[in-house]
Amino acid sequence: MAILFYSSIDDLREWRAAFERALPRQRFCFAGELPEAEIDMAVVWSPPAGLLASLTNLRLVFSLGAGVDHIFADESFPKQVPVVRVVDPGLTRQMSEYVLLQVLHHHRRMPEYAAQQRRGEWRMLPQRSPAETRVGVMGLGVLGMDAARRLRDLGFAVAGWSRTPKSEPGMECFAGKGEWQAFLGRTEILVCLLPLTEATRGILGKQAFSQLARPAEGLPGPVVINPGRGAHVREDELLAALEDGTLGGASLDVFAEEPLPADHPFWQREDVVATPHIAAATDPDFVASSIGDNLARLERGEAPGP
Amino acid sequence: MAILFYSSIDDLREWRAAFERALPRQRFCFAGELPEAEIDMAVVWSPPAGLLASLTNLRLVFSLGAGVDHIFADESFPKQVPVVRVVDPGLTRQMSEYVLLQVLHHHRRMPEYAAQQRRGEWRMLPQRSPAETRVGVMGLGVLGMDAARRLRDLGFAVAGWSRTPKSEPGMECFAGKGEWQAFLGRTEILVCLLPLTEATRGILGKQAFSQLARPAEGLPGPVVINPGRGAHVREDELLAALEDGTLGGASLDVFAEEPLPADHPFWQREDVVATPHIAAATDPDFVASSIGDNLARLERGEAPGP
Repeated sequence: MAILFYSSIDDLREWRAAFERALPRQRFCFAGELPEAEIDMAVVWSPPAGLLASLTNLRLVFSLGAGVDHIFADESFPKQVPVVRVVDPGLTRQMSEYVLLQVLHHHRRMPEYAAQQRRGEWRMLPQRSPAETRVGVMGLGVLGMDAARRLRDLGFAVAGWSRTPKSEPGMECFAGKGEWQAFLGRTEILVCLLPLTEATRGILGKQAFSQLARPAEGLPGPVVINPGRGAHVREDELLAALEDGTLGGASLDVFAEEPLPADHPFWQREDVVATPHIAAATDPDFVASSIGDNLARLERGEAPGP
Repeated sequence: MAILFYSSIDDLREWRAAFERALPRQRFCFAGELPEAEIDMAVVWSPPAGLLASLTNLRLVFSLGAGVDHIFADESFPKQVPVVRVVDPGLTRQMSEYVLLQVLHHHRRMPEYAAQQRRGEWRMLPQRSPAETRVGVMGLGVLGMDAARRLRDLGFAVAGWSRTPKSEPGMECFAGKGEWQAFLGRTEILVCLLPLTEATRGILGKQAFSQLARPAEGLPGPVVINPGRGAHVREDELLAALEDGTLGGASLDVFAEEPLPADHPFWQREDVVATPHIAAATDPDFVASSIGDNLARLERGEAPGP
């Protein structure tokens, strides 16, 4: 039997090398390399519809990334097969790093300073303190809570919004649809780290953007930072909100279509930071050795786990 | 008697308003507004040579900013007049914010991603962890130590270099000329927060740049971040080091000549972040009320102090 690896975005050679190092006696393949019936396990990121259903002897799936929505989006996925999340602690660290970088970038007015730099213009802009800068984090799971805590520890006025009520010292916590508007109304820099579900798909659109708090006169408008899932954002409405000044800027790492097409307007905007899905990447060596631990557990008759 | 305020870089109206709020009964003036003999105190940033010596009844100087070098650079300054530093805690916070932002910017390869963005190019670049990224902070005074600790807390491999030996958990501490080369040899991202003295003027030149640690093949070369004093850097040698690949990038907030001339090559380089001396600014309201406290102390016959 063999492990199938599928990812739409990773360097496959790196993954083959990591599995060969961690599991030298385990057969390993990419899609199309071995007969489907020989595959009993799959390690996947965003598999194409039907791929997992075609594996007739599949008994276990390992999910790469923080959510499992990329697997359950495929309606043909055989739901009796257990899905194990490979929780890479480096993923949380990288995500918080990216969020801190982007929040500081907008807080310190770097998009404007970069535009001044291109013009050779020396001009100081008014600067607020972090205590005056209201950041709102959507999603208080492992990733969202870690990013929110680090922002709070730098002195930002941080609030969180989650499906179920949470509480955390030094952070205003909002929950559910009933507190959605209040959360938006006090937020100037919005960070989205929600899981992707039918309830959250397209949640960041015209209506949400128009409800964000507007910073004082002379400061750039509110900012959206999305390092989570592209499908949370209605991209045409985001572009319109940047055009008409409803939003002052955005940092986007994920998109409805990836790779983002070369002629997409996001690339050329001075008020948008567009990065190629690099906020947080899973480490192949960590995943391969974590899967090795899981296989050893299964051999001993124990349940799989992180 | 009156307080004279002089700063080459600040918005003077903001300072007048702050002093009027904090010290409504104190006379306040800018250079040239009152006869010199009526001025007994001065609040200054980088005064022109001779200005302070011309104030015949001067009995106290308040220094804006973290160092006092901007006052003692003027050889005519009457050295018997006490100089009191106005230590604004917001200054340290802002400086650490700027350092974190610039270190994360280079660590996460944002100069390259920005160049790709302008070309509409979707390409992931290898990313190291902060533990693999060796940051070196020159100067472990109030500003340098705070920045170094925050970088350490984000997981960076941090070392410090200072004139006198220091020690700090989780940080390699180098001291003096004898350990200068060892410090450079393990440093990939160099942050300069030294005081400006005759011993440190021009310390960042060709020789220092060539001794920095070179990151692994495929990664950008070493980076210099200077938010402290322009005179630490030999700017022609920095440009040459960027040109010939000795350095991979720089973030510069201070310059030999300020404002940086509009045709200076720093403005147009993709591998340089050039900002107009905005890393850390003193808050006029804080300074005015701190000076009010000092005047009250003097009236009670106590020594001035922070």
